[in-house]
Amino acid sequence: MAPRYGLPVTSPELLPERFSRVLADFIAARRIELSALDSELAALTDVLEPLISGGKRLRPVFAYWGAIAAGGTESDELFAAASALELVQMSALIHDDLIDGSDTRRGVPAAHKAFASLADSEHFGEGAAVLLGDLCLSWADQLFFESGMPAERLLAAKPYFDVMRTEVAGGQYLDLLEQHRGDATPARVNRVMELKSAKYTIERPLHIGAALAGAGPDLFDGLTAYALPLGRAFQLRDDLLGVFGDASVTGKPAGDDLREGKRTLLVVRALELLEPTDAQWLRSALGTPMSDSDIARAQNLLTDCGVVAEIEALIAAELSTALAAIDSTSMDARAASALRDLGVAAAHRSR
Amino acid sequence: MAPRYGLPVTSPELLPERFSRVLADFIAARRIELSALDSELAALTDVLEPLISGGKRLRPVFAYWGAIAAGGTESDELFAAASALELVQMSALIHDDLIDGSDTRRGVPAAHKAFASLADSEHFGEGAAVLLGDLCLSWADQLFFESGMPAERLLAAKPYFDVMRTEVAGGQYLDLLEQHRGDATPARVNRVMELKSAKYTIERPLHIGAALAGAGPDLFDGLTAYALPLGRAFQLRDDLLGVFGDASVTGKPAGDDLREGKRTLLVVRALELLEPTDAQWLRSALGTPMSDSDIARAQNLLTDCGVVAEIEALIAAELSTALAAIDSTSMDARAASALRDLGVAAAHRSR
Repeated sequence: MAPRYGLPVTSPELLPERFSRVLADFIAARRIELSALDSELAALTDVLEPLISGGKRLRPVFAYWGAIAAGGTESDELFAAASALELVQMSALIHDDLIDGSDTRRGVPAAHKAFASLADSEHFGEGAAVLLGDLCLSWADQLFFESGMPAERLLAAKPYFDVMRTEVAGGQYLDLLEQHRGDATPARVNRVMELKSAKYTIERPLHIGAALAGAGPDLFDGLTAYALPLGRAFQLRDDLLGVFGDASVTGKPAGDDLREGKRTLLVVRALELLEPTDAQWLRSALGTPMSDSDIARAQNLLTDCGVVAEIEALIAAELSTALAAIDSTSMDARAASALRDLGVAAAHRSR
Repeated sequence: MAPRYGLPVTSPELLPERFSRVLADFIAARRIELSALDSELAALTDVLEPLISGGKRLRPVFAYWGAIAAGGTESDELFAAASALELVQMSALIHDDLIDGSDTRRGVPAAHKAFASLADSEHFGEGAAVLLGDLCLSWADQLFFESGMPAERLLAAKPYFDVMRTEVAGGQYLDLLEQHRGDATPARVNRVMELKSAKYTIERPLHIGAALAGAGPDLFDGLTAYALPLGRAFQLRDDLLGVFGDASVTGKPAGDDLREGKRTLLVVRALELLEPTDAQWLRSALGTPMSDSDIARAQNLLTDCGVVAEIEALIAAELSTALAAIDSTSMDARAASALRDLGVAAAHRSR
């Protein structure tokens, strides 16, 4: 089917670069604004720039295709509004790394670590990271409203932006709660996955883009039918990579999720499927500095008990549901094709 | 002079109650929204409600009078938009208390303490407080845009809202930096005071209100000429109360700022004015768990070296500059009268 709506559409592999350019310009403007208040404040954007330069721009990409799906036209204004979602994500990552005590992010020091080196104080680093995350969150809706999209479109999309921020904070809260209780059930893990991965990463960005392009209710429903199963497939792949991923590709040591003690669906279902003594060993090993041979033993247990095959089957089923939703939803043909490709890539990626 | 513009105007002492009602309704709606995502999430608003019920609503009050000053009409929509500023402030307080390790706020446990009790974990408490502060910040612009004010007015006020959030985070960052360096100069202290007290608490709220009512540039300038000196007077009074305040009125132990080691203008100037041995003693006592007799000794040193009289004179001069700005700015007469009263009250309050 030929494209139905206004050309041009940037080729998918060049999209992240377009968002990165918007973000770099916006942050450069904030640097000038902060420096005018006080020269010391440039440190805030100095810490931010390397952190934000490395992302995959997944949420802006989905927002962009949501808009194209709805018949929207590609424009600098659309790129700017979609890029705002990366600032929400940056805020979440800075605060997450602080809460989790993660030292690195995207190959560079996490914000709290970078600030700690600046003033030779961990306490200063933590406080400054809280503030930088707050700034990114404030800057997200600033960039959204400064994008130059028509006011009525921005106001139509704003409720989706709002609900997205509430859902992600809610998902993070539940995740934190489960970590501290340590009694996660598959139902609880699925709830966190729905809020943090499916809704926050895929559904709401698509909705925001669709609303920016003035979509009708049918498209919102179709995008939801695609996003929720795909979000689960995306997270389940993440869970497998967190245990079995190739360190040279993922950039994280193999088995990292096990050492962190993450209660993923993979782990929670394994604890249900394993023989009691094996389950007991795994439960006691999770969240400890496991040796490489501990990791290997855990990997073997997960493979042998059938949970890996179960998760792979779930990913395949979720992906198939997501792709079927695209087929049964009326949308721009280029967007449909891009969303299919993004779905397959998300479900089968190796990093 | 008789009121020039649309009646009614709520009597000043009843204003905080109007904002509190908006906030209570808004948070109740968020509670329903969060509970629909997961029943555990109601804990977020359960922790928030007692914290937000206690404020003076200073920023909404200034936003309200900024709008009235510009000829705006009192309306439920204006109350809602102005109340959004209290959510920005709540976010800042929750994150400040976390960074400072303050256990109580407005007579109830600080957010991180309240969450810590919920899951019997300090780490959970800290993480959840980061998330609740993020939610309040997101909810601030949500309430602003849901206020029902006309879209063009909201968009005209939004840049002031944005710059306010950047300025307050910048001020907090500088404040944190000074605390860790411990080498504050009067110039550095004045910069923090300008950003955190003068601009964030008074100038920008007035500007937001004025923009919501469609004010012209002269009024913005006049409000700035009032706000910046008044903000300094307000902070200087705060500094005096933090050392000399009556605990039964301020709700904080006398000398609390000394025990916390705050580098206020009062303290920094005292260190310049005191005899070397006295200055050395004070410097070494600041930020330690000083006894009541240490506090009494510090109070005497501050009084005797003349810094208290100097700060009182500064407060009087700043207040006088602020009041003169009201007289020389054309604005609604009721707003002028209210801003005069607020100025005098802020400069001479005992809590």
